This record gives sequence, C-alpha cells and structure tokens, in this order.
Amino acid sequence: MQVIHSIKEMQQITKELRKAGNSIGYVPTMGFLHEGHLTLINEAKSNNDKVVISIFVNPLQFGPNEDFDAYPRDIERDENLARNAGVDYIFYPEVGEMYPVDLSTKINVTKRINVLCGKSREGHFDGVATVLMKLFNIMMPDRAYFGLKDAQQVAVVDGVIKDYNIPVELVPVRTVREEDGLAKSSRNVYLTEQERREAPELYKSLQKASQTIFDGEKDLDKVKTAVINAIQEKTSGIIDYVEIYSYPELEEIKEPKGKIIIALAVKFPKARLIDNITFSI
Amino acid sequence: MQVIHSIKEMQQITKELRKAGNSIGYVPTMGFLHEGHLTLINEAKSNNDKVVISIFVNPLQFGPNEDFDAYPRDIERDENLARNAGVDYIFYPEVGEMYPVDLSTKINVTKRINVLCGKSREGHFDGVATVLMKLFNIMMPDRAYFGLKDAQQVAVVDGVIKDYNIPVELVPVRTVREEDGLAKSSRNVYLTEQERREAPELYKSLQKASQTIFDGEKDLDKVKTAVINAIQEKTSGIIDYVEIYSYPELEEIKEPKGKIIIALAVKFPKARLIDNITFSI
Repeated sequence: MQVIHSIKEMQQITKELRKAGNSIGYVPTMGFLHEGHLTLINEAKSNNDKVVISIFVNPLQFGPNEDFDAYPRDIERDENLARNAGVDYIFYPEVGEMYPVDLSTKINVTKRINVLCGKSREGHFDGVATVLMKLFNIMMPDRAYFGLKDAQQVAVVDGVIKDYNIPVELVPVRTVREEDGLAKSSRNVYLTEQERREAPELYKSLQKASQTIFDGEKDLDKVKTAVINAIQEKTSGIIDYVEIYSYPELEEIKEPKGKIIIALAVKFPKARLIDNITFSI
Repeated sequence: MQVIHSIKEMQQITKELRKAGNSIGYVPTMGFLHEGHLTLINEAKSNNDKVVISIFVNPLQFGPNEDFDAYPRDIERDENLARNAGVDYIFYPEVGEMYPVDLSTKINVTKRINVLCGKSREGHFDGVATVLMKLFNIMMPDRAYFGLKDAQQVAVVDGVIKDYNIPVELVPVRTVREEDGLAKSSRNVYLTEQERREAPELYKSLQKASQTIFDGEKDLDKVKTAVINAIQEKTSGIIDYVEIYSYPELEEIKEPKGKIIIALAVKFPKARLIDNITFSI
C-alpha cells in the first residue's frame, strides 16, 4: 500500500492503472476509519482490481459552527486499518494541495438539500460537491462507494454525477447494523443502557412502515404518524424528523410510487441517531 | 469519421480509445465551422492519435437577449469540413440529451469574468463552464484546444480545469491572421473597404504596445493611452475597451510583470472587432 500526497502523482498513478486495464474502486473518506468505511472498502475490493481511498478533512463542507479543527485525525491508525483491509493507495493531501488558491468558480447544490439533515447544514453539500468533483478527477474511479446511512449525501452525489456526466458508477452500500437492527454508528456508545435497549425501535418502525406501504397503504401521512407514535411510545428519544420522499430526488410525494425513502432523526440526550430505509413500490 | 449523438455511446468510445493507448485531442465547437476551428483541429491532429470534436449550441451560455434560436447551424457542411480535416469523431447531441432534466447544481464562475467582453455577458461563462464540465467527462481528452482570440474564454477554462483538477491539458492556439495582421473573423466581411484598410491598425497598436513594455515602459496607463490614440487617429472605429491585465488571472496590475494580456474591442458600424496579445515580461 502506498500513501500519496500530491495530486499530480496520484493522477499519474490512477491514469496508469486504468491504462493497464485495471478497474478502480474508490472510497472517499475524511479519515478516522470505522467499520462503515471498512464495509465500503470490502465492497470495493470484491468488485474492482484496485482499491483507492482518500483521506481528506475538507474545510469547505464545514459550517462556521462545525469545528473543522476538532475533527478527529489519526493517520497512523488509518494506514494500518487500510493496509489490513487491502487498500492499494491512500490519497492523503494537505489542504494547501487541494486548495492552493481561491477557486475561480463556485458550485451550488440547488436540489435535494433543503430536506432531512441538509436543512440545518447550509452550504455543507456545496463543499461536498466541490471536493468530490476534484477527487473524481484525481482518483478516476470506475466505481465510487458511499454508505446509504447518509442517504442524502448519496442523493446529492447522484445528482452531481448525473449533472456532469462523470464517468463513474455510484455504488450505494447498505447500512451495517447490529444484530438487533440498530444502525452501527460511532455515536451509539453515547447511549445509556436503557437508551441502547430502546434504539432498535428506530429501524423496526421503518421496517414496519415499509411493510405497511407494501401491503397497500397509500396515505403517507398515516404511515409517518405510525412511525412517530411508535418511537414516542417505545423510546425516550425526541424526534427531529420523520420524512418520506422520492429517492434519490428527495422530492415530496403524494402517494407511494417508484423508489422511496423513509428517513428519521431522533435525539437522545448525548447522541442524535439517524436511520432510513429505501425501497421501490 | 463517425457522428455520435448519445452521451453513453460517446463515453464508451472515448473510454475504449484511451484504454487502447490512444491520446485524444478535443475541439469543442458550436458548429458552423470556420477557419479558426480548422486551425484548432489541425493542431489537435498533429499532437494526438485521435481527434474528437463536439458540435453543440449550448443554450446555457446564451443570455436572454442573445438569440440562441438564430445561431447558425449546418451539420452537413460541418460534417464535410470535419471529415476533410481528418476528425475521427463528431459528438453531436440534442439539447435534451445534454440537459434531460433540470440540473441539481449550479456552477458560478466568480473570477476572470467582470472584465473585457465578459462585463456585458452576465451568466455567459457559467454556461460555458457547465457545458465544458460535462463535455470533458464525455470526451475524456488528453488535450483540449481553444483559440486565443477569445482569450477570456481561455482564461475561464484554465480556471475551471485548475479548480477541479480536470485531467486535461489546455492548449491555447494563437490567433490566425490575415497577411496584414488583422485577426481572422467571420465578422470581417461586414467591414467597408475603407474600414478593412484601417482594421490592421488594431493588431499593430497591440504589437507596438508590447514592444514599448519590452523596451522598459512601466507606466501601463501610458501604454493604454498610446493604443487608444493610435486607433482613434488611424481608424474610424469607436473603442469599446483597451485593457491590460495579468494573464490568465485577468487581474489588474500596477506594473508589467509575469504573463500579461493587452486586449481591445473596437466597434465599426457593422462589426465589433476584438483582438489581443499575450506575452511574458
């Protein structure tokens, strides 16, 4: 495994890899790798000749109240995890390498953003889109892997790829779960024992909701209310949102048709949990 | 020579060309090919294994008062010219192929635009940047050829390529001129005989200005005034602008240093002529 710091060198390597007929699977990360990343890397490994990841804490996607400086970084630990997972190249640039001068353009994501978690993160997805446009051109992947846990990010990336005909296949990877269904998250450790016992109800309520729709329910407000009631009854969490949209467009729908997402965010005193389920009807 | 209408098919072809080790030279056009385009194609031909061009009148780069519908189109004539020039592929998509749905993002060019001709074409370069982002991903060129006659466009494209690390070499091709130095333009035919005799003064004044700077002149206002005076004395044209900037940044400079552009636009009753000279000091 090689760690590459320079854009020019990374671009040269990915160019050569492709020329030699290798398919490239790519996992973009901000480092501090956890099980979610490793799942994406495994997925990339099983479908590509070479696996490249990037580790870059992108200042552009942090808001003024989100602490870019405090974001956890541990490159040595990440290198070991990546090496053990079979990564071929880590692209690990400095901020000054990625943004040497002020950009002469701005990308604004105009759709799929003012819903779900995006509502409270103004400008976040502009930064995500900008850095991914750069990273796709540097890593030149055949396939790029994103976790469906952050379904809105997947939706925005899908929009960016389609808008600009980026020659990459977006591979959404389904959420890794504990045995009882709770979506894995580094935030789960902040739950009390009691909250941890309640938390699987989030996914259970999503599963029940999708089953209700499969069974023929057309009234989405009714489905939403059932999810809200179940969570309020069976957990001590406070609901941030429960929403049903078309996916990946994230547009309001009158009745279930095509691909759909049901997504929720629930606040516990020390952890805000998100989860979602996507399916076609 | 093949004419390709579908993005998917074009992308498949360019992908295969690159895989087979071919270098790709690319000339983006809006069709109605003239000598300027053919110069770019020749240049592409002499430095690449394969030459691809696109013909696409991009609605996004036309302002509300610029007539997108009236833009001249003649694909048969273009095909013949391209075939004779040795083009390998023409990418010729419909508007609905390039913009099947509303984009979910917007690119705003924020630098290099509010100067020269860009001052009066709000949003024009946003449209240019958007379509080029798409076209670069579709044509996957090693090198892209742009005429230096439109030096501001070259500057904006340079910014876009650097901003997003697009793996393409921008090749600015110098302006083709008549024997007396007048920059070739389809608009030159609208000049009266008298105006046509005066018109070479535009380039002469630019050459003289660059020579003055080479000879040590530091006062750029003085240089500008000399150009203005020469054109006012020796032609009947009305000066739109004479400007000196850093290049390709198009920023104001206090004194000559590094790469510089002197650019002008002069209005004759039936033709607005532009010209420029770039050089390093």
